[in-house]
Amino acid sequence: MSVLTVERKVLEKNDSIAAVNRELLKSHHIFSINLVSSPGSGKTSIVEKTIEFCRDRIKMAVVEGDIQTDLDAKRVDVLGIPVVQIVTHGACHLEAALVSESIKQLPLSSVELMIIENVGNLVCPSGYDLGEDKKVVIVSTTEGDDKPLKYPAMFRNASVVIINKIDLAPYLNSSIAELEKNALSINPDLKVFKTSCTTGEGIEYWCKWLESNITRK
Amino acid sequence: MSVLTVERKVLEKNDSIAAVNRELLKSHHIFSINLVSSPGSGKTSIVEKTIEFCRDRIKMAVVEGDIQTDLDAKRVDVLGIPVVQIVTHGACHLEAALVSESIKQLPLSSVELMIIENVGNLVCPSGYDLGEDKKVVIVSTTEGDDKPLKYPAMFRNASVVIINKIDLAPYLNSSIAELEKNALSINPDLKVFKTSCTTGEGIEYWCKWLESNITRK
Repeated sequence: MSVLTVERKVLEKNDSIAAVNRELLKSHHIFSINLVSSPGSGKTSIVEKTIEFCRDRIKMAVVEGDIQTDLDAKRVDVLGIPVVQIVTHGACHLEAALVSESIKQLPLSSVELMIIENVGNLVCPSGYDLGEDKKVVIVSTTEGDDKPLKYPAMFRNASVVIINKIDLAPYLNSSIAELEKNALSINPDLKVFKTSCTTGEGIEYWCKWLESNITRK
Repeated sequence: MSVLTVERKVLEKNDSIAAVNRELLKSHHIFSINLVSSPGSGKTSIVEKTIEFCRDRIKMAVVEGDIQTDLDAKRVDVLGIPVVQIVTHGACHLEAALVSESIKQLPLSSVELMIIENVGNLVCPSGYDLGEDKKVVIVSTTEGDDKPLKYPAMFRNASVVIINKIDLAPYLNSSIAELEKNALSINPDLKVFKTSCTTGEGIEYWCKWLESNITRK
């Protein structure tokens, strides 16, 4: 019981810092997304493709969350986009306080879209608000079509699902249609995109949706 | 700081229950493995293939851990192997106490191999000993070859790594050799298997290793 009490206090504290982050981003008219998924579903590849497609249309900044290494931040840095790496040293999710420190290091007055890439974990980040406008869950076709049923909290708390690696679907036993159906059975309000970072398919529609949400600077 | 103290107490309590589980399994001459991976890396498929290949040679029982649903236990149950489903209702890893309750429901006196399939999470289960003989981490080729570097704790604490979905390697940018190299750079003692549950490739070697570890009943 004591563990549950501590956990509740941690979440309450996190939520109050997230509210401050949300106000700060709002005051700068920044649209922000929190990308969550299992390890290897393609979060960083989606970030790369989004930068490639949108860099001439949207002013972006990125916060990278990882347990170890700055490999992901390096992948963004070479593309010339402002990026801050958070290394959690073992912690299984980002918290609002870490994001608060990070976003202050970015040129907020000229940013239109803030992309926060969470730690790869389909479970723990679901309960931690970072102050973002939308939580976006990525699930790849190779993970099997039952994942929304088995990890419902993340799909319930997200506004958008990106079904990624659709180029691999012909080689799999799982079905994209079934994956989409299962995601919508958990959360009928989910906006669904289907993408491949290898072929580029579907990236255009995802980026147009991002563009429709930003405020021009 | 209070959170860290509570966490340490939780882990100490878990370790003492895990020691009891280990003694119980040992007293029954049962070889036990704890299968860990990201969601969708193929834990349940590996369990199915192991049953298919070994059912005439090894007496098995299975403990399935899931956050929601008993889909995995049903997949094992149809194969006629004794199985217990643990539903964690949101918790991101199995703990020794849950496994303790479950294994008591299985016919231990006639079991040679106990397979515990953990919740799909490449982070949190790494710190929780369940009382198993060996922790086996599964990583699929589709997750990218950098995963051991980004989630080192799980690879450091495991004895075996199964590189799964090798049939998809021709369609990916990632490299099996690089994935193996990265896993061994984190933990040079890892025993490596390469498998495909679609083609059956490599399952034989994995099953022969299991067989070499069991005590005949």
